[in-house]
Amino acid sequence: MVKFPDTPTFAGYNEPMRFEADLVDLEVEGEVPADMNGAFFHVRPDPHYPPKFGDDIYFGGDGAVSAFYFDHGRVHFKHRYVRTDKYVAEEKAGEALFGAYRNPLGDDESVKGKYRGTANTNVLVHGGKLWALKEDSPPVLMDPWTLETEGYTDLDGKLTAQTFTAHPKIDPKTGQMIAFSYAAKGLCTASIAYIEIAPDGTLEREVYLEPPYYSMIHDFAVTEDYVVFPVLPVIGSWQRLEAGLPHFGYDPNKEMYLGVMPRGGDAKDVRWFSAPACFNAHVLNAFNEGQNVHIDLPVGQSNGMPFFPDVTGAPFNPETAAPMMIRWTVDMGSNSDGFEQSAPIAPIPGELPRIDDRYAMHPYRHGWYHTADPTKPVDLPSTPADIGLFFVNTLVHQDFMTGAPQTYWGGPDIVFQEMQFVPKSKDAPEGEGWLLALANHGNSRRTDLLIFDPLRLAEGPQTTISLPFMLRSGVHGNWAPAENMPTT
Amino acid sequence: MVKFPDTPTFAGYNEPMRFEADLVDLEVEGEVPADMNGAFFHVRPDPHYPPKFGDDIYFGGDGAVSAFYFDHGRVHFKHRYVRTDKYVAEEKAGEALFGAYRNPLGDDESVKGKYRGTANTNVLVHGGKLWALKEDSPPVLMDPWTLETEGYTDLDGKLTAQTFTAHPKIDPKTGQMIAFSYAAKGLCTASIAYIEIAPDGTLEREVYLEPPYYSMIHDFAVTEDYVVFPVLPVIGSWQRLEAGLPHFGYDPNKEMYLGVMPRGGDAKDVRWFSAPACFNAHVLNAFNEGQNVHIDLPVGQSNGMPFFPDVTGAPFNPETAAPMMIRWTVDMGSNSDGFEQSAPIAPIPGELPRIDDRYAMHPYRHGWYHTADPTKPVDLPSTPADIGLFFVNTLVHQDFMTGAPQTYWGGPDIVFQEMQFVPKSKDAPEGEGWLLALANHGNSRRTDLLIFDPLRLAEGPQTTISLPFMLRSGVHGNWAPAENMPTT
Repeated sequence: MVKFPDTPTFAGYNEPMRFEADLVDLEVEGEVPADMNGAFFHVRPDPHYPPKFGDDIYFGGDGAVSAFYFDHGRVHFKHRYVRTDKYVAEEKAGEALFGAYRNPLGDDESVKGKYRGTANTNVLVHGGKLWALKEDSPPVLMDPWTLETEGYTDLDGKLTAQTFTAHPKIDPKTGQMIAFSYAAKGLCTASIAYIEIAPDGTLEREVYLEPPYYSMIHDFAVTEDYVVFPVLPVIGSWQRLEAGLPHFGYDPNKEMYLGVMPRGGDAKDVRWFSAPACFNAHVLNAFNEGQNVHIDLPVGQSNGMPFFPDVTGAPFNPETAAPMMIRWTVDMGSNSDGFEQSAPIAPIPGELPRIDDRYAMHPYRHGWYHTADPTKPVDLPSTPADIGLFFVNTLVHQDFMTGAPQTYWGGPDIVFQEMQFVPKSKDAPEGEGWLLALANHGNSRRTDLLIFDPLRLAEGPQTTISLPFMLRSGVHGNWAPAENMPTT
Repeated sequence: MVKFPDTPTFAGYNEPMRFEADLVDLEVEGEVPADMNGAFFHVRPDPHYPPKFGDDIYFGGDGAVSAFYFDHGRVHFKHRYVRTDKYVAEEKAGEALFGAYRNPLGDDESVKGKYRGTANTNVLVHGGKLWALKEDSPPVLMDPWTLETEGYTDLDGKLTAQTFTAHPKIDPKTGQMIAFSYAAKGLCTASIAYIEIAPDGTLEREVYLEPPYYSMIHDFAVTEDYVVFPVLPVIGSWQRLEAGLPHFGYDPNKEMYLGVMPRGGDAKDVRWFSAPACFNAHVLNAFNEGQNVHIDLPVGQSNGMPFFPDVTGAPFNPETAAPMMIRWTVDMGSNSDGFEQSAPIAPIPGELPRIDDRYAMHPYRHGWYHTADPTKPVDLPSTPADIGLFFVNTLVHQDFMTGAPQTYWGGPDIVFQEMQFVPKSKDAPEGEGWLLALANHGNSRRTDLLIFDPLRLAEGPQTTISLPFMLRSGVHGNWAPAENMPTT
């Protein structure tokens, strides 16, 4: 009998959605640009069944993909669960068979050895397929139009790494997907694999390397010539799993490391640079000027994820955790094992950073991210206990040339989800286009997809596309221009 | 650009739902009986596009079928639009092409001559197909498991009537579907066709007859030996359509008639019995004792449908319109052209009457219906302007042997939808089983499917099956026991 527990993970705007849906012609206020053609894919953890052990963290939910298809001014919607091995086995059983988040020790005997992935973290189109990604398992491929799941892929037997990041980068010049794997040789193994995939989805290169210790490597940085693996002290171990602790914990007493490798290089070419502990989840952008490698990203001075608690027992501190955009610069020409950390490069703290992806890996001017403005009133049916820094009521545009930010506050019951920049055309100047943001209205239980002028964020949305229900809080997503979608 | 008007037809719990949905394993409070196997189908008008002329009545919406599949204690949900000719043409165009409710004069040139039906009034399984019915068009057949639409049917070319009632009866002894058509020879024609369909869906008989005048014949009565067509003064005409009036209007100065025909009879065997004007929408049950034909039904003394206004301009009067259950008795052995009308046979007024369908056409003891209890508090986001007698907060069980009613009030924000009796087994005594009722929570925007003990209604639901969204207010539905569902 399906009955969810009465805990914050499943309440208010984190309430499980659980249904799959289709809607032709979403309701629209304003105009949908007729030349904005393609699809916006977004994924959310959405538990199909109540957790096997009563409660679990928000990120344990089954991946459910939302697709907004933009077709010459009309917008159609489709929402489907990813048919992971986990989803299929549990649906057959009618209950949860897998135990706690990233801990296989409590799994039902019948699913031992199956992929535990939920494909709930990111989705993007590459090589004509929709890749649904969770960093603890290989990629799952889906049909971008029907959202039917093809299943886990080992890329024609070429992918040996056991996991795949949820944050691969598309090289805007070569069209390659640049990716990596951590825990590449199995759960809690420290091994990293660097992965290059051709525009058609063929695996081109897989290079193994060993970091100083096992940690959660949620995102990484790629420039035209280098790749950077941030090893931050979000640690994990079998001992923790056996003790029934959360898979990850933050250890403020451990050094952090950056592993930098030339993109054409090998394990022997990796150099490790270190600094005192800090916290980061996502990378804004990176580029290199010769041997100087710049990584721009939001960094906090203490743990940013309260659901992965500080191992010293220190409570979550939103003030020290507040992530400021800074620039890390590694000089690959020097003999130092340290690197430069800049002062904040933007006045407003925040997370879920995005850029005009055509400028990925290269010098760029504009960034967009979310912030939680504490001066604004909050009127929500419940306050999420476990989201930490990702509860956000305000969108930020940062012009790194002028230094000036613009913000847009959503309203007292609105929680935003990650933004997406869509260029007006292939050759439009940086930042010229549209900015998409999903807004969850906690009280009226609805989700709007808002379209902004990316460089005039403060003016508010020019178009509101409305769903007649609320999507559960989601994670990441990506736009696929019409020319990247497979022909039907 | 899709944008619904801000009118009561599209507000609050009448807000269009518009999406199609699938959900495996609905959330359940209490127990779903493991031996309750089959499917509960229910249909609602749900406008896919805003009305062509700004506003329209609630009943103009496109038919959207909800299916609850009961499988050994698990309940799965599916919701699909019926792909009527109207739905398909409008979806392609991205806007409404058909004009006002039952008025073709405003239709777009591109759809002239197409069926205008919305299949939005009733659904039932017969001959292995799901029949989706709207009384202005032929039946639409669907797959009961996938809810895929097969399309309009003329029953292998045998059905010549141009319309088909939304209230056919299944003869519990023969398994035949007994049906009829009004406006059988085209819009606003007075002609009626009587229709018999075999258990396998084959048309067996079609008999034409002419009533005294054209009227809305929404339901009819069938006994073991007779069929009764109630011609009540809910009149319509081309003149009204040309004047832009609602298709139907109530004329309190016209006589009403009952046309009674032996089931094996022909047009020449029909006799017409008359009385002063009154209003009825649905029939509870009917049976005959020899030549005495009893028809039990809720009857009001003035118009019950404010959206089809009184032609004299008299305003809607909820007090005189309140439908009381009474018994009409026609003596087919007498020479009179009148008939007997009983005093109320139940103390509580109400509508949407249902019985244990195994007792249809035969003497019976139990009835269930809805009532609007004016003594109870109301807390709804908006009050429906056009639903008239069908806004109901209370369920009623009437034991016609003891005379005693039981009631269940839902709560200040609950609007119920039509109940469904499900027998515990084929041979269980009358009334022994389960009673299903959909409850719309107007404020939290959710629909629950409640299971009651049919004979202990006042005790409240024993089981609550929850949808994570609200279905738009619906109309009729039916249970299909597992043995009536096609094998998959």
